[in-house]
Amino acid sequence: MTTIDHTHDPAARSCVPGADGHSDFPIQNLPLGVFSPGDGVARAGVAVGDHILDLAAARDAGLLTGEAARAVAAAEGGTLNGLLALGAGPRRALRAQLFALLSAEGPDRDRVPTLLHEASSCSLHLPARIGDYTDFFVGIHHATNTGRQFRPDQPLLPNYKHVPVGYHGRASSIRPSGVPVRRPHGQAKPPHLDAPVFGPSRRLDYELELGVWIGPGNQQGSPVPVEQAAGQVAGFCLLNDWSARDIQGWEYQPLGPFLAKSFATTISPWIVTPEALAPFRIPQPARPEGDPAPLPYLLDHADQAGGALDLDLEIRLSTAASRAAGLPPHRVARSNARHMYWTVAQMIAHHTSGGCNLCPGDLLGTGTLSGPDLESCGSLLETSQGGKVPIRLESGEERRFLEDGDEVTLVARGLREGFAPIGFGACRALVLPAS
Amino acid sequence: MTTIDHTHDPAARSCVPGADGHSDFPIQNLPLGVFSPGDGVARAGVAVGDHILDLAAARDAGLLTGEAARAVAAAEGGTLNGLLALGAGPRRALRAQLFALLSAEGPDRDRVPTLLHEASSCSLHLPARIGDYTDFFVGIHHATNTGRQFRPDQPLLPNYKHVPVGYHGRASSIRPSGVPVRRPHGQAKPPHLDAPVFGPSRRLDYELELGVWIGPGNQQGSPVPVEQAAGQVAGFCLLNDWSARDIQGWEYQPLGPFLAKSFATTISPWIVTPEALAPFRIPQPARPEGDPAPLPYLLDHADQAGGALDLDLEIRLSTAASRAAGLPPHRVARSNARHMYWTVAQMIAHHTSGGCNLCPGDLLGTGTLSGPDLESCGSLLETSQGGKVPIRLESGEERRFLEDGDEVTLVARGLREGFAPIGFGACRALVLPAS
Repeated sequence: MTTIDHTHDPAARSCVPGADGHSDFPIQNLPLGVFSPGDGVARAGVAVGDHILDLAAARDAGLLTGEAARAVAAAEGGTLNGLLALGAGPRRALRAQLFALLSAEGPDRDRVPTLLHEASSCSLHLPARIGDYTDFFVGIHHATNTGRQFRPDQPLLPNYKHVPVGYHGRASSIRPSGVPVRRPHGQAKPPHLDAPVFGPSRRLDYELELGVWIGPGNQQGSPVPVEQAAGQVAGFCLLNDWSARDIQGWEYQPLGPFLAKSFATTISPWIVTPEALAPFRIPQPARPEGDPAPLPYLLDHADQAGGALDLDLEIRLSTAASRAAGLPPHRVARSNARHMYWTVAQMIAHHTSGGCNLCPGDLLGTGTLSGPDLESCGSLLETSQGGKVPIRLESGEERRFLEDGDEVTLVARGLREGFAPIGFGACRALVLPAS
Repeated sequence: MTTIDHTHDPAARSCVPGADGHSDFPIQNLPLGVFSPGDGVARAGVAVGDHILDLAAARDAGLLTGEAARAVAAAEGGTLNGLLALGAGPRRALRAQLFALLSAEGPDRDRVPTLLHEASSCSLHLPARIGDYTDFFVGIHHATNTGRQFRPDQPLLPNYKHVPVGYHGRASSIRPSGVPVRRPHGQAKPPHLDAPVFGPSRRLDYELELGVWIGPGNQQGSPVPVEQAAGQVAGFCLLNDWSARDIQGWEYQPLGPFLAKSFATTISPWIVTPEALAPFRIPQPARPEGDPAPLPYLLDHADQAGGALDLDLEIRLSTAASRAAGLPPHRVARSNARHMYWTVAQMIAHHTSGGCNLCPGDLLGTGTLSGPDLESCGSLLETSQGGKVPIRLESGEERRFLEDGDEVTLVARGLREGFAPIGFGACRALVLPAS
């Protein structure tokens, strides 16, 4: 587990304007990503306030050295895969040197401005080449809510409390925040018809998830023990697992979701490191009385003691009409990352338990992180109870599922007394009409 | 569709010894791959008889020019992704020039020997970096046989004859022929127990599939019409979708197969091109009376007229005991690639119909290609009827599922009167005990 150190000092201030107060990216955060300045090539950077620091430029200026310089060298070529592969040591060295460099009292603070780009004038890219993407299903309230729609008497299938259920997702269609999502065509069979029809999805939905970036990875045939699984985590992001419910309902038997999900996945582009999130570690919530204990290959006491995350999560929705009326996005749900039945370490231990190899830059999704009540549902399928009960927006509009022109934003914040608030940056995309 | 030309002349002979007669790789085949000579770096090559021709060396010698040289240039760096991305034009130019170069009467035949490596002294690699791997389920006899074990009255689910069902597989654990496969550990719940157990799989199985290599790919949001889908196919291979049936049975609800498949997939390392397979194109078998017509986005008359493949398929099994006794591998099944309910073009049109982007070097599996009877089943799950009826090998041993030390080889051959036989090379792997 990552420990608390001077880089978490809430009193620390940055020499970069806007990196204090209510920014997602105070000096205590320092998330890693890949950006292009207005006309430049893609390169590695770190977000601080409203700016992005060019890591290679800082290294070239002699301001990042040793292990930190090694981390920067591994991040060349427009993807962070090489840096993620190095694991915690160089990543932590980079954090420590960046913290010193960007400090309001840092000896080199006068040299920082030449290394910065205004974030608003940069493009943000996927931070790594994603080899494989796996989506889990560890949000137990989501599993229960959606299961109840099909099986009122037995919402959770018999394996749920034994197996961190997951499936392989589509890596090629993952895009960073800001890239619009086109409503997919697909096959669906409405209940009142005898045969399926092909056309634009009529039940387009979002899913609120966390993404987990894999660091060093493992060799095929060599499982990662649960006790070592945290060392495989290079960081976190927000993930919107866009879902076409009508396509999903017709296609998913017997091999699982396919085209209902593969048209697009949106992630927040900054990799928020385990170090930045150390203050927000909490014990894994106790299993309800009567639930089975995890099998030994999934059980590590240190993981149980501090393997969960306390992060506030929100879903915000704006519509064409609400934007025209100048209304702010409507908060359609508020949840928390603690609503995971399995920890990230358990997901990784399970994923590799049969010998499957994870690689640097692989991405895991947690599954939808709904809370226990209707106001904390991470998908419209749940909030609208299968499309039966619309939600009312501040604009006066109603929604059962997403309409063209809707824009969905996911937000995550770590908030804890005695620590600086940490944000993830936006995970946002606009729904375009089917072509 | 690819047409028949002089490169299919069955009378053609190669200047390379062993490239005639019963080789998998006569001059009419010319499959593409990536190999390393004994001590050399990975490079692009073409198989001919018992040899591999170094493509860059041939180009450097001035023996491949124009579009063919462009294809070779795109194949540098130890993967063929760039070549696959170029599509049919450069690939066909390369075939035509290689045919002329390797011909027994070719004007440059004396220069060929310096470009060759003995295949037995080379290592074969994956021919491309596989971004995403998708496995379909188009073998209707397999779907029926396995469905019957769970639902005797309704083996095929209602969507089967409307949707080319598929799911995302694991790309990272795909390995070329020859790499052993370690028996996975995993969770399973035997019927006589109340709770699951974790241990080595006891129901390890093979699956006989064809693999399809994707060529140019498509932009996200821009589906590939079925009429243009054949242009996305860069070639074919054999694919063994190793499956742990006990893990699969417990984990797969509701999101599909995951660890039951992701520990390993074995492919034959040569990309057999659409051009080489042109003689073996046949009409898609007529749908049985009463089956629904494909929806318009899946229906192209040219595809129906010639989109299926007539390829003999075999599964061969040797055991530690049979090898010790000097017995040849036992043929446990013989099938044919024609047993696909959906064509490859339909798979691609469906996969992209919602906007999902395919990329050069993506791999599709067809799903298990069982024939209609017990001798043509592509998995032991079918042959042994769910493990109830063992098969007897020539060694006197019995098998319900695979045992440690078993070696499985998949074989494919195109055989048609008036044409040279075409092979795929072996897709072979040995089962190692769980670690």
